[in-house]
Amino acid sequence: MMSLSSTHLDIKVLAYDVGSQTVINPVTFATTPESLQQAIDNADAITAEFEHIPHDVLAVCEQSGKFYPGAEAIATGGDRAKEKALLDKTSVPCAPFKIITDKAHFLTAIDELGMPLVVKTCQAGYDGKGQWRVKSESEIDSTWDEMSEFLQAGTEAQPHSIVAEKMIPFDREVSIIGVRAKNGECKIYPLTENQHTNGVLTLSIAGKEKANIQAQAEDAFAKLANALDYVGVLAIEFFDVEGQLLVNEIAPRVHNSGHWSQQGAHVSQFENHIRAVAGLPIGDTNLLRPTAMINVLGQSHIPSQVLAVSGTTSHWYGKDAKPGRKMGHINVSADSLHKLGEALAELADILPEADYPGVMETAQQLILN
Amino acid sequence: MMSLSSTHLDIKVLAYDVGSQTVINPVTFATTPESLQQAIDNADAITAEFEHIPHDVLAVCEQSGKFYPGAEAIATGGDRAKEKALLDKTSVPCAPFKIITDKAHFLTAIDELGMPLVVKTCQAGYDGKGQWRVKSESEIDSTWDEMSEFLQAGTEAQPHSIVAEKMIPFDREVSIIGVRAKNGECKIYPLTENQHTNGVLTLSIAGKEKANIQAQAEDAFAKLANALDYVGVLAIEFFDVEGQLLVNEIAPRVHNSGHWSQQGAHVSQFENHIRAVAGLPIGDTNLLRPTAMINVLGQSHIPSQVLAVSGTTSHWYGKDAKPGRKMGHINVSADSLHKLGEALAELADILPEADYPGVMETAQQLILN
Repeated sequence: MMSLSSTHLDIKVLAYDVGSQTVINPVTFATTPESLQQAIDNADAITAEFEHIPHDVLAVCEQSGKFYPGAEAIATGGDRAKEKALLDKTSVPCAPFKIITDKAHFLTAIDELGMPLVVKTCQAGYDGKGQWRVKSESEIDSTWDEMSEFLQAGTEAQPHSIVAEKMIPFDREVSIIGVRAKNGECKIYPLTENQHTNGVLTLSIAGKEKANIQAQAEDAFAKLANALDYVGVLAIEFFDVEGQLLVNEIAPRVHNSGHWSQQGAHVSQFENHIRAVAGLPIGDTNLLRPTAMINVLGQSHIPSQVLAVSGTTSHWYGKDAKPGRKMGHINVSADSLHKLGEALAELADILPEADYPGVMETAQQLILN
Repeated sequence: MMSLSSTHLDIKVLAYDVGSQTVINPVTFATTPESLQQAIDNADAITAEFEHIPHDVLAVCEQSGKFYPGAEAIATGGDRAKEKALLDKTSVPCAPFKIITDKAHFLTAIDELGMPLVVKTCQAGYDGKGQWRVKSESEIDSTWDEMSEFLQAGTEAQPHSIVAEKMIPFDREVSIIGVRAKNGECKIYPLTENQHTNGVLTLSIAGKEKANIQAQAEDAFAKLANALDYVGVLAIEFFDVEGQLLVNEIAPRVHNSGHWSQQGAHVSQFENHIRAVAGLPIGDTNLLRPTAMINVLGQSHIPSQVLAVSGTTSHWYGKDAKPGRKMGHINVSADSLHKLGEALAELADILPEADYPGVMETAQQLILN
């Protein structure tokens, strides 16, 4: 989507596929004859679309001096220990936490933060596992066995650590997406309210926020983006705890919860990321109309009837369908939150609840408010 | 741009280059190994982006039964005699005219329509020539010599003709763009006001129209699109003569004066054309915000500072620069016509008047009104 939103800016985008280790056309997926180093040499700017980049690839990108948002930002997004250190340094609020590298740390965390306790690996790549909940004394030893296995898998060059977070009941999950230019200018999209189902984002809405919540999110964005001397689009996920935002996670990239911006803002997060890393002026991020995004997970296609609902656009990624895989998304915009609710109700009649959870419930809430 | 606006609909677009007679990727321009017939066999739908298609190519497209808007519509757009016959048949107003195939017709036309008289070839392809103005008796014979040469170049299979049109002073040029689905449903964009410089479109504005003018244009659109059993985007250019619209030209395709719809409407003319020919539901055509389009003619790039003007998007076509060639366009949107004027004034400070005529004048008119 970054590539598709660059063509009209006269910017040509090539992608490096870390799986096949080849340089490809990101739209046709055709392999190009260039090596990674040749592609880097020929490029004016280099960026990343996810944070779990092999260290050797990240190193050659960084060495080029053309890599934005930069290795430190990518590393921070890919390592919860670095992320928490940044939050500490910038005094941006998050839930109380402890970094764990041995069992004594773990027992202290249980003691100080209490149970239930959320425990997460700070680095990725542990067979999909990487998160535990410790609810009672009886779970401590068995959880420690798994945690210990992860800690021991670290190396001197790439040590492993684990973070324990106090479990704080929250009202909802929200996120802020913003863009920072090379000259430090920031433009920030309106806050998005996100619904997750089984840990995966299923629905986002932009256009519901009140000024005081937006201001908290923008303050966090500015502090974090400036501390990282960030260039490009940065996403921050928060828990809303009775009107106070606590950072859950930082993503140094375009973010699924910002996909609504393709229709709901004048310049999408994709185009703004490309503008920023290419050194072009960044574009308007204000809301055009209230807009919702519905993720398409594991489906082989999007029903074409959705396009008959006023204000609807479908986005298909061209990937092979797998259960749970993000295959595409549906954006829907309307002139008011009430009309957005009506459009979502029409979509809920087309989209099965089992595959697209929460659409009708969200519609009803918007219509009633 | 049609291709770029189809990717997210999970539609793959190939193009046939009538110059090189090869099937190409419309974004990368890479040649594909398919022949035209193979590409037609593999396609679900076929369309055209301009009306001057070689007759043999048009024939094989039409034979496939998958060609929209259809050979008759394309032929009508490429032949002024067919176009005038359609206007006659549907009683859609245009300037009084006469079809000319011999000198007697020409003299009758001068007699009945008066001078100055506009004379145009009905078919394209006469070394760029194809339009004359006859202002006095002394010009009749020399003009006829050139006209006669064109008429004699016709063949029995493809006869040539010429149309003479009464020259009517008009207040401005406007156009309507609409889309008609396979089921006959029409959606119509707001009327666009167009400025031409040396016969080439330089600037368009959508969002100025009053209801009665819009209604006239929509009536003409419905009559013509229905008469052609049209599928896809159809553009009609008008002269506005004291509030009455007279058809100037019909274009059976997406149209330069509809490029504003990429930012000014929820679904662009490009996406709506693809939706229609692919048999998908057509999308919203109503105005989101007043939007202007500025053509980039013959320039090697668009100054990047334009992106710093709020509401501005640049569109670059990736073609080699030639004097006068349409290289790209700039869209600018604002929440009101007054604010659009202010944005155009900012753009006029960046874009030289000689290369981008009329931007400051238009800005001032919008600001004053």
